[in-house]
Amino acid sequence: MTALKLLILFPLITIKIDASVVINRYDDECVLDPALVAEISSYENVTKHIMDQIRNNYGKTMYQEYTHFIDKFGARPSGSWILENSINHMINLTRQHGLNDVTTEELEVPHWVRIFEYGLMLQPRAKKIVILGFGSSVSTPRGGILAEAIVVKSFAELEALDRTKVQGKIVVFNEPYVSYGETVIYRTLGASKAARKGAVATLVRSITPFSIYAPHTGAQYYENNVTKIPTAAITLEDADLLQRLQNEGEKIVLQIQMYYTEDTKKSRNTLVDLKGRVNPEKLVIVSGHIDSWDVGEGAMDDGGGMMISWFVPVVLNTLNLKPRRTVRAILWTAEEPGLIGAQAYLKQHKNELDKINFIMESDEGTFQPLGLDVAGSKKTRCIVQEVLKQFAPINKMENSGAPGSDIVLFIKQNVPGASLLNRNERYYWFHHSEGDTMVVQNMTNVVECAAFWAAFSYVIADLSVDLPRH
Amino acid sequence: MTALKLLILFPLITIKIDASVVINRYDDECVLDPALVAEISSYENVTKHIMDQIRNNYGKTMYQEYTHFIDKFGARPSGSWILENSINHMINLTRQHGLNDVTTEELEVPHWVRIFEYGLMLQPRAKKIVILGFGSSVSTPRGGILAEAIVVKSFAELEALDRTKVQGKIVVFNEPYVSYGETVIYRTLGASKAARKGAVATLVRSITPFSIYAPHTGAQYYENNVTKIPTAAITLEDADLLQRLQNEGEKIVLQIQMYYTEDTKKSRNTLVDLKGRVNPEKLVIVSGHIDSWDVGEGAMDDGGGMMISWFVPVVLNTLNLKPRRTVRAILWTAEEPGLIGAQAYLKQHKNELDKINFIMESDEGTFQPLGLDVAGSKKTRCIVQEVLKQFAPINKMENSGAPGSDIVLFIKQNVPGASLLNRNERYYWFHHSEGDTMVVQNMTNVVECAAFWAAFSYVIADLSVDLPRH
Repeated sequence: MTALKLLILFPLITIKIDASVVINRYDDECVLDPALVAEISSYENVTKHIMDQIRNNYGKTMYQEYTHFIDKFGARPSGSWILENSINHMINLTRQHGLNDVTTEELEVPHWVRIFEYGLMLQPRAKKIVILGFGSSVSTPRGGILAEAIVVKSFAELEALDRTKVQGKIVVFNEPYVSYGETVIYRTLGASKAARKGAVATLVRSITPFSIYAPHTGAQYYENNVTKIPTAAITLEDADLLQRLQNEGEKIVLQIQMYYTEDTKKSRNTLVDLKGRVNPEKLVIVSGHIDSWDVGEGAMDDGGGMMISWFVPVVLNTLNLKPRRTVRAILWTAEEPGLIGAQAYLKQHKNELDKINFIMESDEGTFQPLGLDVAGSKKTRCIVQEVLKQFAPINKMENSGAPGSDIVLFIKQNVPGASLLNRNERYYWFHHSEGDTMVVQNMTNVVECAAFWAAFSYVIADLSVDLPRH
Repeated sequence: MTALKLLILFPLITIKIDASVVINRYDDECVLDPALVAEISSYENVTKHIMDQIRNNYGKTMYQEYTHFIDKFGARPSGSWILENSINHMINLTRQHGLNDVTTEELEVPHWVRIFEYGLMLQPRAKKIVILGFGSSVSTPRGGILAEAIVVKSFAELEALDRTKVQGKIVVFNEPYVSYGETVIYRTLGASKAARKGAVATLVRSITPFSIYAPHTGAQYYENNVTKIPTAAITLEDADLLQRLQNEGEKIVLQIQMYYTEDTKKSRNTLVDLKGRVNPEKLVIVSGHIDSWDVGEGAMDDGGGMMISWFVPVVLNTLNLKPRRTVRAILWTAEEPGLIGAQAYLKQHKNELDKINFIMESDEGTFQPLGLDVAGSKKTRCIVQEVLKQFAPINKMENSGAPGSDIVLFIKQNVPGASLLNRNERYYWFHHSEGDTMVVQNMTNVVECAAFWAAFSYVIADLSVDLPRH
């Protein structure tokens, strides 16, 4: 799908672009101290040097290490020993690169394991329905659930139904895809909403605009005081089929079996520091999450973002470029079950938030880099915009209000931050599905992301001024 | 992928376009009898009438009937009772539309049934490898095959290997996708080639340029005097992964289990005739195949082509337009296992080939129609080109030499014919996979294909002259 089509089909994107227009106007009014503007432009040589070194030398090795990491471990679900092995691997790799300031912070994480899943339409005809349970879903009773299905397109349609129409049934949510942010509530809250109406399970149209019969998993949350019912993704194809069959007046009978185990395990956030030469107590954090869902290989979500963030202190150290402030890469653990690693970090470091000068995350793809989605005060945004000028054409600036995933927790605490904008129009085609593999990645793009990410962080970490808060 | 990208990446397409350029030059030399040119242009009102009636009235009903057909039956593999039920359904539907001249011709067809398939990588790490057996593959021995894998990119690379490197191994073909026509030999002949070198099974990279972890099935053929070994598709993602692991020097061990049954059953070609008012013995055949693979719903391959072809005599009858010659829609059975229905028809009617004035097939999608791929004498192609003028912009003409699938058997016997050109750049993304469902279809496009298909056939069936042969 082209960007133009996206614009036509999905008004939210238009809203985003409107926001960016507003920001441009706003930023036109930026009046920075000429000395600061001069200081920022004095970094042009060093940012060019960093980017050239990554493009021509170190980036290719990083990409090989990234590929090797994904091929060696594959999926790295929260609580698995594979995730812990992959964390050990990154710690060792950091040391192999000559950076020894790597520490971990332990925490408890969910360990939800997919054992067996099976879906079948029995009426009006026999047809396999591929299902993929959502993280934290309960199992079906032994022997599964055999029940009539009712298809709805929205929570409003569900609410309007008489309780007797829903009770004892499997509710199929066939919500239209508007945008990930808007549509994902059917995955996160669908089970709770349907349970309140007496449903015995929910199947949810996968949160993606395009499919080749791929189901997409993701986190879901049971509301308090609600019966926990099994909840899984189905494909766009089957959601549309069930909708049409219902529209034609057919009675739909489904059989599903879903079995999971759930406990907790220890995991670790990994911190890789390049200590600042002047203010080592002040931090510029660059981050991505090292865990993934259990389907696919977690190459895109978030192997790429984790890798380019890990690479920032490593490559700056290799290049012998030590900025004023400490550059800390954080490899968050257990992002997928609900920002568990980031929550633990925030709790543990809640008294040091004023020390975080800027916090960055790449968790929406490492395709061709475009710029940053920036949250912060007007002055901070003006400074970032001034820095971005030297990265043109990677100088787009947006203001969604909630950049990144893990770092949103910090943004909410008034810490300024940014996420990587990139040409990720197809991101949700692969997201949380078996299609999240190295095939979607491209060395040139990942290296370019890494080059931008490292050079930009360097400037922010080295500037004579801190980024001012609201 | 854009057409431009396709052009850059796949030289075969360039060759096709070169051919079409040649044809244009060739057709510039078309010198038709002015009376014939005048006669052809006199059809403009009736073709406009047919297309308008289909666009505004009958096409929508046809699309509903198409959707209902796919939703009711789903996949219709050769030899299955579902296929036979779906044939009965089309016979009844024809009569419901007031056309009673519908007959069937019985033949024996393969009945290969997928029972159970399972793939696993054991070394260098445990990972599920989704496999999808090719039609006519033999089963693995009970308990499956546990063997080392060797990855090759081409038959040449396989041939160059010492026999001891291949013997007892599973050969993984990781051939680059050039075009379906060029690349499909790895599916059709891979097992035989590998068996000759002592392989115990083959896994073949799916024949598609794009994937969201979807395996694609299709026909394969064991050569004579070769050990029949199990053969299945794997995804692009896993093919690339296995290649990288081998390149890194890893020993790859796979375990596969594949179980199928194979026998023969009776099936039927279905013939729907609108008898000609002047020369009922002369035929214009429009066709598509009613069978499909056992994965997906056979909506695109070839539900759409079958439906728009079936619709031609039906709608012309409804519009009370009876051309000079008979318009015969043929719903081929058992195309997928190897043009079995078309072969039987050719054999049964081998003495009547001179009665076929023109033979048409739609089996490469019913997306936005573009024109025709035409095989025949220079004069025939000149006439077709003259007729196409009134369908602009649906007036592209190509000359691949082998239009359609079933009808290639007749083209080889010097019968002139054509297949539908349409905007099917994404056709192979879904082809022979679970992704071949109604989701890929679009009512406006299918109706437009049907309108063009019916109006064009009408002119050819009604012209005062037969299409001249070589």
